[in-house]
Amino acid sequence: MGEFELLAKVRARLPQPGPQVRLGSGDDAAITVPGGATATSVDALVDGVHFRREWSSPAQIGHKALASALSDLAAMGAEPGEAYVVLGVPTDLNEDDCLELLDGIVELAAASGTSLVGGDVTRAPALTVAMTVVGHAPEPEQMVARAGARAGDVLALSGEIGGAVAGLLALERPQLAAGVAAATAERLRARQLEPRPRLAAGRALAGGGATAMIDLSDGLGGDARHLAAASGVGLQIEADALPLDLGVAEIAAAAGRDPLELAAGGGEDYELLVTLPGERFEAAAAAVSESGTTLTRIGTVVAGEGVEIRLPGGALLEPAGFDQLS
Amino acid sequence: MGEFELLAKVRARLPQPGPQVRLGSGDDAAITVPGGATATSVDALVDGVHFRREWSSPAQIGHKALASALSDLAAMGAEPGEAYVVLGVPTDLNEDDCLELLDGIVELAAASGTSLVGGDVTRAPALTVAMTVVGHAPEPEQMVARAGARAGDVLALSGEIGGAVAGLLALERPQLAAGVAAATAERLRARQLEPRPRLAAGRALAGGGATAMIDLSDGLGGDARHLAAASGVGLQIEADALPLDLGVAEIAAAAGRDPLELAAGGGEDYELLVTLPGERFEAAAAAVSESGTTLTRIGTVVAGEGVEIRLPGGALLEPAGFDQLS
Repeated sequence: MGEFELLAKVRARLPQPGPQVRLGSGDDAAITVPGGATATSVDALVDGVHFRREWSSPAQIGHKALASALSDLAAMGAEPGEAYVVLGVPTDLNEDDCLELLDGIVELAAASGTSLVGGDVTRAPALTVAMTVVGHAPEPEQMVARAGARAGDVLALSGEIGGAVAGLLALERPQLAAGVAAATAERLRARQLEPRPRLAAGRALAGGGATAMIDLSDGLGGDARHLAAASGVGLQIEADALPLDLGVAEIAAAAGRDPLELAAGGGEDYELLVTLPGERFEAAAAAVSESGTTLTRIGTVVAGEGVEIRLPGGALLEPAGFDQLS
Repeated sequence: MGEFELLAKVRARLPQPGPQVRLGSGDDAAITVPGGATATSVDALVDGVHFRREWSSPAQIGHKALASALSDLAAMGAEPGEAYVVLGVPTDLNEDDCLELLDGIVELAAASGTSLVGGDVTRAPALTVAMTVVGHAPEPEQMVARAGARAGDVLALSGEIGGAVAGLLALERPQLAAGVAAATAERLRARQLEPRPRLAAGRALAGGGATAMIDLSDGLGGDARHLAAASGVGLQIEADALPLDLGVAEIAAAAGRDPLELAAGGGEDYELLVTLPGERFEAAAAAVSESGTTLTRIGTVVAGEGVEIRLPGGALLEPAGFDQLS
């Protein structure tokens, strides 16, 4: 099957795009009328680097590619708008696999209100999915960058962390999950294979006074450093306040790892790390709760630089260098 | 060198972005305020499929990736705005090569008024450059899709064709270029390795009454069919009106190929194929001429479907199926 035939089949499966889209897939470019500010992010997944075809169905790979891109829009507090996909197809990926991968993208696109309106298909030595996403807000000031954290702000985290890296360990060595309930192990594997971008929580935080925000793709330790550096501040994190996913402690113990080190070093949780003035925390937590997840206070923004994750006794926790997919 | 170090070095080389960019590279997403309609296109180049590292310098690969993406904006008549790059880096591409590739992108970006404001870097088994470009126009109606051609319109072509495929032949078998001047052979190779998007000509045509437009990436034969199908019309092309690049006839002859078949079948010329009402052709040609290239009338839009390329004696020319890089 040629590129054009595949693209025609893909287009036939696309739902009607949103009202801001004036010309969808199939021309030289898609035409939109944003009507405000846009946030645009690109993100690429490559087989063997960000996923493994033996662990993930094509639909899961498509889902993860769009999810990790949308997570960047969540971290801006933007409303998802359009997505564009570049698919690099190796010779051993057949037409059905390609279409199933696209179905994985289209399903999450529909669930998140994203219109898939453009793309390119090419041969490639390894399955590659590069995703461009465009989000919207009425004004640029309504979006949240990494750079606005101020000394005295509260540092908070949506949901739970450590699940994606625990799920990866359970995929690599299934016996590590022998001590947790089957449903828990399944949920941890799903956090690795089918991450969910925190779009509603991101919008709630943007509307709730967030001064800086970033999504956890590289891991709390690394992403906190990015936020601190962009804002020109330091971050003090209380290790025992970190909300760990159910089953992370058991899988870490089975692997001979410290659960907090593992969770702080493991990437791909796609939770939101956010700073906001202390007096706005309770209302923001309530708004995030309405979006279906939690907001946990994990530390404080301080003058200075760098990130310290402090254990109850006062010692510093060093996020594990973990040989993860990322 | 890690991804973050490379990205920091890249950002340090970027010129100041345009005024529509409110937040450039380095955050979760770039923020822009388009102020009208946008045209967005994605395009990927993969080593061994769209270029060969033994023929192209890293700067030429970066240039070609942006040029082929911007050509889609030229075909909409849009003003170039922002670009986002995904770089898939194999282990044998070193840091200097990466930065030279980015320099190739940045140079064309600056020359074309495009702001490079985001990107992603990942490991990959083969050098991959996926480019997203966003163009602008005050109103969506000022952009030109493929679908507006009407029976009776003139069919016209910017510049000359056949140069990119002749340049490819000259790269594959240098002896084929023995019969042309060295400067001509060099110019043909440059058409293959460093294509120039027809941005100014595209804007001139959009403002000059173009009813449909497409850029020639797959070759005149194939791209004319795309335009005809999108518009629901037929296209009659006069083969002896086709403007061939200097040296194409000689290289085709040396390769034992018919020059017109070669030029009509060869891709990557990135010229614009456009339809417009006959009474607007002369003024449009004058406007294109001011942009530094030519506009040649090559045929007519007719009722019906499909594309016929007719030789002077009345026989039909079949664009060569050419085993090209594409």
